[in-house]
Amino acid sequence: MIAADNIRITNPVVDAALSDLDPRPIQVLAEKCESAGAEAIDINSGPLNRDPERKMAFLVEVIQDVTGLPILLDTANPSALEAGLRVCRNRVIVNGFSLEPAKLASILPLAKKHEAHIIGYLLYPDSHVPSDGAERLGVAIELFDKYIQAGLDKERLIIDPVISPLMWQDGNAQDMEILSVIRMLPDVLGFDVRTIAGLSNLTSGQGDRGKKILMEKIYLPMLMGSGLSIALMDVTHVETIQVARACRSLMSPGIFSWEEI
Amino acid sequence: MIAADNIRITNPVVDAALSDLDPRPIQVLAEKCESAGAEAIDINSGPLNRDPERKMAFLVEVIQDVTGLPILLDTANPSALEAGLRVCRNRVIVNGFSLEPAKLASILPLAKKHEAHIIGYLLYPDSHVPSDGAERLGVAIELFDKYIQAGLDKERLIIDPVISPLMWQDGNAQDMEILSVIRMLPDVLGFDVRTIAGLSNLTSGQGDRGKKILMEKIYLPMLMGSGLSIALMDVTHVETIQVARACRSLMSPGIFSWEEI
Repeated sequence: MIAADNIRITNPVVDAALSDLDPRPIQVLAEKCESAGAEAIDINSGPLNRDPERKMAFLVEVIQDVTGLPILLDTANPSALEAGLRVCRNRVIVNGFSLEPAKLASILPLAKKHEAHIIGYLLYPDSHVPSDGAERLGVAIELFDKYIQAGLDKERLIIDPVISPLMWQDGNAQDMEILSVIRMLPDVLGFDVRTIAGLSNLTSGQGDRGKKILMEKIYLPMLMGSGLSIALMDVTHVETIQVARACRSLMSPGIFSWEEI
Repeated sequence: MIAADNIRITNPVVDAALSDLDPRPIQVLAEKCESAGAEAIDINSGPLNRDPERKMAFLVEVIQDVTGLPILLDTANPSALEAGLRVCRNRVIVNGFSLEPAKLASILPLAKKHEAHIIGYLLYPDSHVPSDGAERLGVAIELFDKYIQAGLDKERLIIDPVISPLMWQDGNAQDMEILSVIRMLPDVLGFDVRTIAGLSNLTSGQGDRGKKILMEKIYLPMLMGSGLSIALMDVTHVETIQVARACRSLMSPGIFSWEEI
């Protein structure tokens, strides 16, 4: 599944429209995402320090007025999250929780109450990134324990191994470790757990756009070939979408057809 | 490592030059391969029914006059192979053997005698393709046994899991199985065995060139991400070479640099 990460508060268009509670610019963006190939839409509202409930409800409502796609509610603010969950009629995924105590205490119960799917990040309680694949699998086991202890249904869990930016000193090595983590998670957790990865993280920071898209285009097949379930990405990257579709055709259990490429 | 599959008898230029024993068209091709990014050159001479020794020796000599790249001697004809091995000064890889009794009897001893590296195909003795990953691993174990019994050094073995064309009924499913085979071979054989795959096989048959290259561009990162050592490919596919290089930067143990992309 391809999820669009384009509706984010760091986009000045989204920020301005949200300040003015002006639905149209946000709806235009959501429609563009869907026609570009998005199969789900991430609403990254940021922390929403002022008026969080009203603003998240506004975002969800204006977007589901123009699309029936599943929505990822991407905020660390529990009030905003709850407001979004309350008004969301589309299929909904909470994005997300981690071992951070505040998130375990506030986010998990909301996902449970609203029977939402939920993304769990492989990060330490202080939000530090694990330093290799084995540490990530250790965090995954702990995260899964907390999740089950909180009474949620394992079928609704989606794991995010958290892609490292290539500009980090060992970012590329970490990103290679992530491939094995994605392959091993079903065995380690004992069920066919779904996974999500935020592809835009890979190339965050300064850099040539063409080179960034090239790196996306090679890392995405590695992720998908390793079993990734959901690619969260900038759906305006036409060539990356084309790559995602070609990977899906290659990996589909049916007979391959050149017509579908 | 990127090995060029462009010097092949099915190319009319190569066929004509070989008939006339005209070095220049073959040398031009070899030079083009090297400047396109080839790090080894496969000489696919076909069976060479007439004058095999003279023709293979000619091919090897004219090519190593213009390049110092390693050479893959790609023929099932033992006389041609031996003639090639005898004149080859560059690093040499025999391509290759399988469980086929004639190949075990004739090709393995030549590789041993000339201390050549050698490619072993994961095919049944009658050259049929195994029907899944488990069968391929079974063939690999048998192939490795025969190889060791023949007294060759395991460090010189390279395994070719044999990519299935997408036009085959279950070609794409087989090609996904091959990824796990590449990942599992070092554990199954108990050492860090190298692997090679002929990427042109993937898209053999009729089809749109752009779509074929797209499929190469997504399957190659999957192969490399699974640990493939040598990609045998058409090095005139500039975008596929670019993908191979980007994969290498991503996978390199050193610090990633955008300058290298």
